[in-house]
Amino acid sequence: MFHGMVMPTAIVMLKIDHRKVTGTAEKLLEIPDIAEVYSVSGRFDLLVVVRSDSVDKIESVITDALLKTEGIVESETMFAFRSLDKREGGRAIDVD
Amino acid sequence: MFHGMVMPTAIVMLKIDHRKVTGTAEKLLEIPDIAEVYSVSGRFDLLVVVRSDSVDKIESVITDALLKTEGIVESETMFAFRSLDKREGGRAIDVD
Amino acid sequence: MFHGMVMPTAIVMLKIDHRKVTGTAEKLLEIPDIAEVYSVSGRFDLLVVVRSDSVDKIESVITDALLKTEGIVESETMFAFRSLDKREGGRAIDVD
Amino acid sequence: MFHGMVMPTAIVMLKIDHRKVTGTAEKLLEIPDIAEVYSVSGRFDLLVVVRSDSVDKIESVITDALLKTEGIVESETMFAFRSLDKREGGRAIDVD
Amino acid sequence: MFHGMVMPTAIVMLKIDHRKVTGTAEKLLEIPDIAEVYSVSGRFDLLVVVRSDSVDKIESVITDALLKTEGIVESETMFAFRSLDKREGGRAIDVD
Amino acid sequence: MFHGMVMPTAIVMLKIDHRKVTGTAEKLLEIPDIAEVYSVSGRFDLLVVVRSDSVDKIESVITDALLKTEGIVESETMFAFRSLDKREGGRAIDVD
Amino acid sequence: MFHGMVMPTAIVMLKIDHRKVTGTAEKLLEIPDIAEVYSVSGRFDLLVVVRSDSVDKIESVITDALLKTEGIVESETMFAFRSLDKREGGRAIDVD
Amino acid sequence: MFHGMVMPTAIVMLKIDHRKVTGTAEKLLEIPDIAEVYSVSGRFDLLVVVRSDSVDKIESVITDALLKTEGIVESETMFAFRSLDKREGGRAIDVD
Amino acid sequence: MFHGMVMPTAIVMLKIDHRKVTGTAEKLLEIPDIAEVYSVSGRFDLLVVVRSDSVDKIESVITDALLKTEGIVESETMFAFRSLDKREGGRAIDVD
Amino acid sequence: MFHGMVMPTAIVMLKIDHRKVTGTAEKLLEIPDIAEVYSVSGRFDLLVVVRSDSVDKIESVITDALLKTEGIVESETMFAFRSLDKREGGRAIDVD
Repeated sequence: MFHGMVMPTAIVMLKIDHRKVTGTAEKLLEIPDIAEVYSVSGRFDLLVVVRSDSVDKIESVITDALLKTEGIVESETMFAFRSLDKREGGRAIDVD
Repeated sequence: MFHGMVMPTAIVMLKIDHRKVTGTAEKLLEIPDIAEVYSVSGRFDLLVVVRSDSVDKIESVITDALLKTEGIVESETMFAFRSLDKREGGRAIDVD
Repeated sequence: MFHGMVMPTAIVMLKIDHRKVTGTAEKLLEIPDIAEVYSVSGRFDLLVVVRSDSVDKIESVITDALLKTEGIVESETMFAFRSLDKREGGRAIDVD
Repeated sequence: MFHGMVMPTAIVMLKIDHRKVTGTAEKLLEIPDIAEVYSVSGRFDLLVVVRSDSVDKIESVITDALLKTEGIVESETMFAFRSLDKREGGRAIDVD
Repeated sequence: MFHGMVMPTAIVMLKIDHRKVTGTAEKLLEIPDIAEVYSVSGRFDLLVVVRSDSVDKIESVITDALLKTEGIVESETMFAFRSLDKREGGRAIDVD
Repeated sequence: MFHGMVMPTAIVMLKIDHRKVTGTAEKLLEIPDIAEVYSVSGRFDLLVVVRSDSVDKIESVITDALLKTEGIVESETMFAFRSLDKREGGRAIDVD
Repeated sequence: MFHGMVMPTAIVMLKIDHRKVTGTAEKLLEIPDIAEVYSVSGRFDLLVVVRSDSVDKIESVITDALLKTEGIVESETMFAFRSLDKREGGRAIDVD
Repeated sequence: MFHGMVMPTAIVMLKIDHRKVTGTAEKLLEIPDIAEVYSVSGRFDLLVVVRSDSVDKIESVITDALLKTEGIVESETMFAFRSLDKREGGRAIDVD
Repeated sequence: MFHGMVMPTAIVMLKIDHRKVTGTAEKLLEIPDIAEVYSVSGRFDLLVVVRSDSVDKIESVITDALLKTEGIVESETMFAFRSLDKREGGRAIDVD
Repeated sequence: MFHGMVMPTAIVMLKIDHRKVTGTAEKLLEIPDIAEVYSVSGRFDLLVVVRSDSVDKIESVITDALLKTEGIVESETMFAFRSLDKREGGRAIDVD
């Protein structure tokens, strides 16, 4: 495991204006450092995974790009203290 | 994009008994079809990504294995209707 | 549309004890007047459709049978004032 | 039980603008793949059952048609991992 | 107890625009089938009791008249499956 | 309208232990000053109307009798500042 | 204890528009029967104590004056069934 | 206005175990610095006003005495930044 | 520990309009008595620490300056009854 | 500003068992990397500031020490993406 390659990760859940859901997922994926976008069931409409080289950059991606996307009416952000992934053999990938 | 390889995905958020958080993430990752586990900030403690060959199998992984893991006090499941991933060139990966 | 055949309907959402989800859906379906059971994503685990000949019987199915099923930790009931169904040609089926 | 005929199902709960509830249920039922609409008591006003041939199509019915209907002020979607129905002899109808 | 005279009942809780509470209770009582209106403490401002000859009529009173009254900002409806009343000797009045 | 006959009124919503709902409504109606009990849909199971000669007596009925009934797991009380009733010709019945 | 001097009491919690908090407490205190105003921490901004000669008058103070004050965005009212005060020697002051 | 006499104030809302509400208000009033206790309608059962000579003493009254009273199942505390009282001529009583 | 130097402290959590998060933290820090601003994950966007010489001044900083900053859509304030800090050797710093 | 000295920060809000609040703040401050503990008004009882050399260490302090402290009944964690502090001249201290 190469330490320098492990990236800080945040998960952002978004509620989208009902008339603007179409196409928003695709628009979000064009933002640099947004790695995955899921269209989900439940109280939120989209779940977005952000991965950057630094915690500081994650915050500026969320604040300056993600949350400025049109149609967002509510957001809730979770920061991943640790990421475990089967492809890494089940060992914890620590974010330092 | 090979259609048969796209897998149905669910995201499960878990609140864990305060005295049993240590080691629970690792234990969950041993369950087949659990692809990723994040230790997260916020109202929940863990966010789990489940990927199976069928919607039916996702439900049995969640019901028969994930939710039976010791220490879980609350859960909320989101089903991913669509998954978009940068590695796939920004196109939608539809789950049929 | 034969009026006498239209049946009062209630929808009950259930949160189930994590260790007892397996088999609960099947057990609920054995209760008379429980027409459909869905295993669902979200804050609840099961969504149950109850259809009886009378409002009074719906209440006794919910109170005396459904809610006494083992493993239920929370419930929320919705009463259907009207039911519209594509098979009936899109017209409202009123519950009198 | 013919496997190919089992259809993925989602349940959408809707809160409607107070002045626009009349007629909204009928309008929703005209959308293809919307199978049932219930006018319900509780925090929501309508409960909608969507059945499509694929998970992907369910998402586009919800996003591109259902949620664009006039008067919707809030929505919460549940995905049915499994559907059990008395008409099928009480056996589980798995959604693959 | 004459069965035909027992009437389906719904209880509607209403939050009213702060500047329009005065007079709203009186206006609501003029609507046919609205039997009682209470000005209440708590999260809601008014509690309304609706009694009609049929479940179907209750829904149209709520949808077409009650919720169209000016100043309503939020509503939550409860359907009474059973009504017990001291004047009837403590026996249940079933709503069929 | 005889002023002295107007009685202070409180509405109590109750969530009942799932295994003890049967018979609780009848037991509550035996408590003096409990005028009506409704078995309702929604987040609560029962809605109870309490009418006494004085505000002070309402509180002791709720505290010393109603809330001590077996099986109550949650309660929320609303006090009726004013009661309007169709039988009184639509005029407000003030509670002094 | 002179019975006629004990006054019905309500406590109203208010959320105020962020730009209009300054001066609102003072403006509220000018309303007759508003006895105390607290600027509080928490989800609400102000807690107001209303004391009138009758329950009916409390309701009209809240509805016709308090809630019409500019800047109120949310309110929740509690009615005091009983008031105990150290200055009265610890005995309950009943509100009849 | 004599500054030394103005006392820091906190308001504590309490939910009480249903079987132990009787007598709890009286027991709380015996605690030094608890000035008023109201038995209230709504989600909480009691509202307690605490007045001490110092912010520090308020906290110890709440933590070491009030919250240790038997039967309390939930609490929410509000601190009064300012107290306005009609008896003081409508001027703000600042808490320093 | 010099008593005069211990300062009353409040913590304010803020939800900011999605399009105005950039730069708001810096603008808030320019307000006198705002000691720290954190850009946080979760339901809120910013957590602000306010320290003043008096409780009264804290309230005017929050009401007259902090809450008037552009872009704030929701706020929740916590008052610190006691502050413990490692730099003070682990002893409580009481706020009188 | 020396970059190496800037430390990742998390804020943890805790609800404490009513009978065990006394002394818990002091016990928490003994845990390494717990920098500040506030006894607060509101829905939570304590607000804890955790500062470590790495994000990974913050998570183990929270999981392996903080949350294992006796008496904690609920917790909610916020991660500070950025920390601004007056002592640093109002400039952002980025956490990389």
